[in-house]
Amino acid sequence: MTTFVLATRNAHKVRELRRILEGANLPIELLTLDDFPDVDEVKETGLTFEANALLKARTIADVTGVSAIADDSGLSIDVLGGMPGILSARWSGRHGDDAANLALVLDQLSDVDDPYRKAAFVCAAAAARPDGSDIVVHGEVRGNLTKVPRGTGGFGYDPIFVPDGETRTTAEMSAEEKDAISHRGKAFRLLAVQLDRI
Amino acid sequence: MTTFVLATRNAHKVRELRRILEGANLPIELLTLDDFPDVDEVKETGLTFEANALLKARTIADVTGVSAIADDSGLSIDVLGGMPGILSARWSGRHGDDAANLALVLDQLSDVDDPYRKAAFVCAAAAARPDGSDIVVHGEVRGNLTKVPRGTGGFGYDPIFVPDGETRTTAEMSAEEKDAISHRGKAFRLLAVQLDRI
Repeated sequence: MTTFVLATRNAHKVRELRRILEGANLPIELLTLDDFPDVDEVKETGLTFEANALLKARTIADVTGVSAIADDSGLSIDVLGGMPGILSARWSGRHGDDAANLALVLDQLSDVDDPYRKAAFVCAAAAARPDGSDIVVHGEVRGNLTKVPRGTGGFGYDPIFVPDGETRTTAEMSAEEKDAISHRGKAFRLLAVQLDRI
Repeated sequence: MTTFVLATRNAHKVRELRRILEGANLPIELLTLDDFPDVDEVKETGLTFEANALLKARTIADVTGVSAIADDSGLSIDVLGGMPGILSARWSGRHGDDAANLALVLDQLSDVDDPYRKAAFVCAAAAARPDGSDIVVHGEVRGNLTKVPRGTGGFGYDPIFVPDGETRTTAEMSAEEKDAISHRGKAFRLLAVQLDRI
């Protein structure tokens, strides 16, 4: 049984990562940053999803002395040159304000019609051990953006994202349906099978 | 003496284009859309500066029967994947709200320090004749973004843009100093010497 700490205080992410990693039936125990109340969340100063995921996993492993798992993820919109990207959670300037971030994207794309509303949810998932070894993997799902939010599941930009081959937004899917195709599901299933190699 | 109509109702742009084109001492007379009160501004539905400049010049030449000159320009920020780009004037979702657009960019880059605050002002300048011929040219100036607005000249993102080799923002320069190095100055001087070839 190996113990890992999830390097986030985002309750939505903790729930989603727990679900995906526990679904992988690994001999691991998961802590969260709530188990280390004195440890601050890591500032995401990297310029890529991969850099930020590694930065968070490495910093939390060093500070806590416990192996750490982290992700950095976001929405990459083709016609916005790949943005909001690493700034997805603070796109409106208000960190973590999902409603404001989503509303801004819809406003920015108000004159943009299909087929130019293509986007991808992207996730980098990282793990780091206190002894210095680490790993980072990538997952993504492509799709299209709706003009009006639909659904109450998920979080972030889920209410406007329809994966390719689907008619529903990821906010209209059950948690299990979303995990099966999502960027975070793909990345963390890939990470899970490699956790014993780092 | 050839007559051209400037395909914009943006008073800042009209003033800047008049200044640059009249400085070129060409045998041309300049009208504006104010001389055609029934003609609507053209919706910028293109995906590039060049496409939008050509779209506006072509549409206004066709509608008015007078040769038309247009520009599309904006701020291309490296770490934002080239955005706000063609969405510069509506980045906050509020078209033409310079203060809101500039504030949003500063918020989005609040965690981004030098040397990652590089950007370019980009301009596509186009001219079109009613008979169907047209031309489009490109101008740009590279620089860095400040963390706090400085200066009261210019418009748009001028208060946060310091051209390479300068210490002042383009909002701290005189109109003539700005025109000499600006994206719009470069593009329209290039266009001016080719107006008799289309």
